[in-house]
Amino acid sequence: MYSFKNDYAEGAHPNILHKLIEANFNQQAGYGEDAYSLEAKEILKQKIGNPQASIYFLSGGTQTNLIVIASLLRIHEAVISAKTGHIYANETGAIEATGHRVITVETADGKLKVADIAQVLKDYSLRPHVVKPKMVYISNSTEIGTIYQKAELVELSAYCKSKDLYLFMDGARLGHALTAANNDLTLADLSALTDAFYIGGTKNGALLGEAVIFNRPEIAPEFDYALKQRGALLAKGRLLGIQFLELFKDDLYFSLATHANQMAMKIAKVVKEKGYAMLTDSTTNQIFPILPNEVIEHLNQQYEFYVWKQIDIEHSAVRIITSWATDEAKVDEFISDLKRF
Amino acid sequence: MYSFKNDYAEGAHPNILHKLIEANFNQQAGYGEDAYSLEAKEILKQKIGNPQASIYFLSGGTQTNLIVIASLLRIHEAVISAKTGHIYANETGAIEATGHRVITVETADGKLKVADIAQVLKDYSLRPHVVKPKMVYISNSTEIGTIYQKAELVELSAYCKSKDLYLFMDGARLGHALTAANNDLTLADLSALTDAFYIGGTKNGALLGEAVIFNRPEIAPEFDYALKQRGALLAKGRLLGIQFLELFKDDLYFSLATHANQMAMKIAKVVKEKGYAMLTDSTTNQIFPILPNEVIEHLNQQYEFYVWKQIDIEHSAVRIITSWATDEAKVDEFISDLKRF
Amino acid sequence: MYSFKNDYAEGAHPNILHKLIEANFNQQAGYGEDAYSLEAKEILKQKIGNPQASIYFLSGGTQTNLIVIASLLRIHEAVISAKTGHIYANETGAIEATGHRVITVETADGKLKVADIAQVLKDYSLRPHVVKPKMVYISNSTEIGTIYQKAELVELSAYCKSKDLYLFMDGARLGHALTAANNDLTLADLSALTDAFYIGGTKNGALLGEAVIFNRPEIAPEFDYALKQRGALLAKGRLLGIQFLELFKDDLYFSLATHANQMAMKIAKVVKEKGYAMLTDSTTNQIFPILPNEVIEHLNQQYEFYVWKQIDIEHSAVRIITSWATDEAKVDEFISDLKRF
Amino acid sequence: MYSFKNDYAEGAHPNILHKLIEANFNQQAGYGEDAYSLEAKEILKQKIGNPQASIYFLSGGTQTNLIVIASLLRIHEAVISAKTGHIYANETGAIEATGHRVITVETADGKLKVADIAQVLKDYSLRPHVVKPKMVYISNSTEIGTIYQKAELVELSAYCKSKDLYLFMDGARLGHALTAANNDLTLADLSALTDAFYIGGTKNGALLGEAVIFNRPEIAPEFDYALKQRGALLAKGRLLGIQFLELFKDDLYFSLATHANQMAMKIAKVVKEKGYAMLTDSTTNQIFPILPNEVIEHLNQQYEFYVWKQIDIEHSAVRIITSWATDEAKVDEFISDLKRF
Repeated sequence: MYSFKNDYAEGAHPNILHKLIEANFNQQAGYGEDAYSLEAKEILKQKIGNPQASIYFLSGGTQTNLIVIASLLRIHEAVISAKTGHIYANETGAIEATGHRVITVETADGKLKVADIAQVLKDYSLRPHVVKPKMVYISNSTEIGTIYQKAELVELSAYCKSKDLYLFMDGARLGHALTAANNDLTLADLSALTDAFYIGGTKNGALLGEAVIFNRPEIAPEFDYALKQRGALLAKGRLLGIQFLELFKDDLYFSLATHANQMAMKIAKVVKEKGYAMLTDSTTNQIFPILPNEVIEHLNQQYEFYVWKQIDIEHSAVRIITSWATDEAKVDEFISDLKRF
Repeated sequence: MYSFKNDYAEGAHPNILHKLIEANFNQQAGYGEDAYSLEAKEILKQKIGNPQASIYFLSGGTQTNLIVIASLLRIHEAVISAKTGHIYANETGAIEATGHRVITVETADGKLKVADIAQVLKDYSLRPHVVKPKMVYISNSTEIGTIYQKAELVELSAYCKSKDLYLFMDGARLGHALTAANNDLTLADLSALTDAFYIGGTKNGALLGEAVIFNRPEIAPEFDYALKQRGALLAKGRLLGIQFLELFKDDLYFSLATHANQMAMKIAKVVKEKGYAMLTDSTTNQIFPILPNEVIEHLNQQYEFYVWKQIDIEHSAVRIITSWATDEAKVDEFISDLKRF
Repeated sequence: MYSFKNDYAEGAHPNILHKLIEANFNQQAGYGEDAYSLEAKEILKQKIGNPQASIYFLSGGTQTNLIVIASLLRIHEAVISAKTGHIYANETGAIEATGHRVITVETADGKLKVADIAQVLKDYSLRPHVVKPKMVYISNSTEIGTIYQKAELVELSAYCKSKDLYLFMDGARLGHALTAANNDLTLADLSALTDAFYIGGTKNGALLGEAVIFNRPEIAPEFDYALKQRGALLAKGRLLGIQFLELFKDDLYFSLATHANQMAMKIAKVVKEKGYAMLTDSTTNQIFPILPNEVIEHLNQQYEFYVWKQIDIEHSAVRIITSWATDEAKVDEFISDLKRF
Repeated sequence: MYSFKNDYAEGAHPNILHKLIEANFNQQAGYGEDAYSLEAKEILKQKIGNPQASIYFLSGGTQTNLIVIASLLRIHEAVISAKTGHIYANETGAIEATGHRVITVETADGKLKVADIAQVLKDYSLRPHVVKPKMVYISNSTEIGTIYQKAELVELSAYCKSKDLYLFMDGARLGHALTAANNDLTLADLSALTDAFYIGGTKNGALLGEAVIFNRPEIAPEFDYALKQRGALLAKGRLLGIQFLELFKDDLYFSLATHANQMAMKIAKVVKEKGYAMLTDSTTNQIFPILPNEVIEHLNQQYEFYVWKQIDIEHSAVRIITSWATDEAKVDEFISDLKRF
C-alpha cells in the first residue's frame, strides 16, 4: 500500500535530520533563544522583506491558529472563516475553546471574498447582542487546494484595513500555494498585505513547525507570554529553529513544494484526460477527482486516500495528496492503474 | 563557557536521532497512530505494570499540565500545588488560563503533605463561595531537587482517595527522581498510587516529549479530543513515539538520569566538603549550593548557572543543573575551580 | 407611541411589587436560602410533578443559558441549536465565551428535528478532529413564535437519550408556549422529557428571573458553585424568589401568558383577514406579519416594532410582540389603524 | 433572633420600591436604555465630577468584578489583590474562570501598599515564564472594615500610573467607606485616582445593583458587549436604573451608609469599653470584636452573626455587620446583652 492520504506520512527532509545531528551537542539557550532559531528568523525577515516583523516558531497549525487568535482578539470579538477553514472544520473547537466564535461563510472554492465579509458585518450589526467580527482568517492554499491570486488578496487586505479587521493567513500549506503554476504572490506580498501569516513546515518537509510572522509587531508585542501560557514554547527551541534554518537557508522549502505540486498535477492531468471531473479547481498538492465508485475500490486496494464526499450513487470525490516525499515512481504506478480501470 | 543552567541545553541522545533517520521514509499514520508510538505505549504499559492504562505523548510539561488539568476538572474545581510547583511558578498562568485556580501551599522542601491538603480543604469549605479543591498536583523530583519517598506517596494517595481528590504527578524530571540514591519508588508504584502522572522526556535525553499516563483510563476517556483542541496533537506523532521508544525499549531513560544525578552529586559532595550549605536537600540533578558571592562571580566567568536567591549580604544560593549530556570532564573542572576559590 | 417592540417594556405584575413591599423588612438569609425562594421552589416542584428536581433562580436568559451549558459540557463538547436559537443569534457569543461551539442547523420554523441532530452527529464524526456534540438546545416557544408539540418533544427526547445527548429547553417564553391554542405539553411533560429546562419570568410579568430546573439533579450536583462563579448568585435572592412565588402560588403565570397570546392572536386574525401573509406560523405572543412598506411606515408613526426582514422591494416582515401588560385598548387601536391603511 | 450576619438581610429602601411601583407601567426601552438608567447615570457623572466617564449598572459584585477584569486584561495578564480581597476569598474563582490569575498579597489590614505591588512586580519578572501583573484590585471599605485614606490612594494611583497598571476599586461597600469618621476621600477623588471603580448598591439599600464607572472610557470602549456576553445585561434595565436614581437623586446613599456605620460604631464603643480587643481597626459597618467564647454563645442565642476566626482556646473574633436597615432598638438590646455577660 502506498499512501496519498496526507502530506505528513514521512519524517523530514534529510538535511534537517543531518543538521540535528551536527548541532546536537552544542549547548544552546532554551525557549527559542538558541542560535539556530535566531538565524532562521533573520533569514525569514530577509525573505519577506520586512526587517521589523516579529517571528515565532510553533509546533503545529492548530496550536498556531489558537494562540494567534486568542492573542489578538478581545473577549467579545470573533473571527470570520470559510466553512471549510481549518479552524472551523478540523480543530476540535480550538478557537471556541479560547472563548471566540468562528463565524462561517459558505464558499464554493474555500476562499473568502469582500462580499462575504461585508455580509457578515451586516449580519452582526445589532450591538451589543452579537459578537463583533474583528478578524478575517484565510488559508493559502485552502483546505481544498485552491489559492489566492494577488488581486484577490489586495482587495481583501484593503477592505479589512478599511473596516479595522485583522487579516490572518493560515499558511500550513503556503509552500504549495506559492509554487503553484497560477500563483502570483510572494512572501513579501504576504508580509505587506496581511497582519499576520504563517509558513507551514510540518506539511512541507519539516518534522514539525510553523513560523508565525507578525508583519506589524505592535499588534502582538507580548506574544511570547501567550506561547508559554498555551504550552507552545519548546524548551529545546533549537528543534524548531533548525527546521526553518534548513528549509530557508536556500530555497529548499520551495523546491520541496514544487515537487509536491508537480506530482499532484501529473495525476490531475490524467484524471482530466480520462474525462473525470474535479470537485475543486486545485493547482496545488491536494486534488479531488470525482471517480466511479468501482474505480475507487480498485485503487484503494493499493493506495490509501480519503473518500471525501459522495457525489451521486455511482460517484464519489476522493482526496489525493502528494508531498515533498512522494515517490514519482509510485505516482506513475498510480497513474497507470488509474488509466487501466 | 560551559552551562549548568538547565537540562535542555543539548539536543537528544544519539539513539533517538539515528532512529529518526532510520525510520524517516516509512510512511506512517498521523496524529499518534504511527507504529512507533503504538510500540512505545505497549512498552510503557509493561514497565508500569498496568495494561489498562491509557497513554498519550505530548510535547512539553506546560502543555501536559494544562491539558490534563483542564480535562479532569469541572469549571468550579481547583488544583492544589506547592508554591514552588511548576504550574504555579513557571507556566505563565497556564492553568488559570483554562479557568481554574491553583491553590498554593508554602513548603520548605517543595513537597505536599496530607496536613497541607487537609488545611486547604478546611480553608475552602464555605461552599459555594469558594472553589472546590479537586486535584492534588505534585512534582517528582520537585522543582528544588527533592523526591517523594514511597511512604509519603502512599499516605498522600490514600488521603486523596478518601477525599475524592485526583492525585496527579508532574514527572518532568521523573527519571532523576526514580534513580536518586534515596528513591524507593518504581514506575509500577506510581501507576498504583496516582490517578495520572507523566514521564518527562525533554529533560532526560529526548528532543521533546512527555508521556502522560492515566492509570484509570475511565477518568479521561476522551482525552484525544482535548489534545487536538489545545494544539498538542502533532501531525507527525512518530516524532514523539520514537523518543519514548528509544528511551524505554531498554533502560536508556534510567541510565541517562543516573548519569545526571551522579554528576550533580559529585559536585554536591565537594560543596559540602568545602563547608558550604545547601538550600535544599536535593538528591537529584538540581542542587542549590549557598556560596559566597565572590566565589559565584569567579565561577560565573567560566560556567553558566542561575543565581537562585539572595541569602544574606555576602551569600547567595545558586542552581546547578546537570543532565544526561553533562560532560564529566567539565564537572571535574568545575569542582577543581570550586575547590580553588 | 405605543410599543409592540418586546415583552419587557413594562415593570412587573403588581402582585410582585406588593409582595416585595410586604416582605421588605423581614430579615432573610442571603444567596437564595430565603424563605420565599424555598417556598417558590417547593411550589414549582409540585407543578412539574417532580419532587427530586433541583431548581435555581437566575436573573436572565443569557446568564441561564451560559451557566447551564458551561456546567454540563466537558471542554471538547458542543451544543446543537437552531440557527435562530437565542444562544446563537442574540447572546454575543456567550456560549463560545465559556469555551464551547454552538453547532447550528438551518430551520424553517425555528425547531430542531431528529433528522437535524442525526445529520450533525454524522458531520461531526471524525474524532478527535471535531468537537463532540453533547447537548441539544431548543427554545419553546421559539424565537420566531412557534411551539413544540408533545409528539415532537417525545421523539426528540427519545433520540437524545439514545445518543447520550443532553436535551435542554430554553423557556424564556415558556408561558406563551404552554398557553398557546395548539399546545399539548404540560410542565410535567417537560420535566419528564428534558434533562433541564427553564421557566422564564422576565418576559412574563417578573421584574427579572428565570427558574432553571434540573429534572435529574445528578447531572449538575454542584450547580451552586457555578452560579456564584459566574456572578449569578444574588445576595438578596429574595428578589428572585418572590417573583416566582407570586407567579406560581396560583396560576398567575399562565393567565399572564394567555393574555399576551390573545392580544397577538387578535392582531394576527386581522392581518390574515386583510390578506397579508405571516413569515412564521406563530401561535404565541410574537407574530411576524408581512406588510407593504407603506403600511409599515404609517403604523410606525404610532407604534414601535421591529422591521424584521425585507421580503421584496415592496414588503417586509415586522415583528409584533405583545405581553402580559399589553393594553387591549391599544391593540384595538392598532387593529383599527391596520384595517384603515 | 436578630441578624447581624450581613448587610443584605432586608429588601430595599422604601423609596426604591415606591418608585418601582410609580414607574411600573411606563413603557421603557430595554437593556439599560430606559429613562431611569440614563438619568441615574447623568446624576452620577455630576457627583463624581467627570462628565466623560462611562457608567454601567450590573447586578452584583462578583459579576462586576469578573466582567471588568475580563474586559481589561489580555490573556497573559494578572490582577493583584490582598489575600482578603473579595475576588480571591469569596468569589468561587470567578476571575480565574475568565482565564486570569489573582496574585495575592498577605496584609494585616486588607489594604495594598506600594511596597506590596513593587514586590509582586519583582517576583513576576521572569518573562515569559510568569504572568504579567497588569491590574491592582483594592476594596474600599475592605472586606475587614478598614478604609483607604486619600494619601494612600494618591500614592497607589501614582505608582500604578508609573508602572502602567490599572487601578480598580471594588466599592461594594463604598458608601460605608466614604461616610466613615476617618474618611477623607470623595467620589470625585475616586474618579481622579482610579481607572475604574464601582458604587455598591446591594449592601446599601438597593434590591440589587452595582454602578461601575470607567473614569477613562477609552480603556473599555466596548464594555456593553461584555455585559451582554456574560449575562449581565438585564432586559428590564429599569430595575437597576431606579435603584441608583433613588439612591443618588439626593443623598440617600450616604445617609443610609452613615446609619450603618453609626450602628456599628455604637457597638464598637461598648466592646472597647468592656476591654475587648478588635481583630481589625474598622471604622465602618463591619466590626470584628474578639470575645470570650461563652459570651459568644450567649449572644448567639438571640443574635445571628459569624464566628470569624478562632483566636485562642477561649476567644474568637466574631463579625458583626450593620446596615442601612439595622434597627437601633435591636442594637441597643445587643449592647445591653453584651454588657450583661
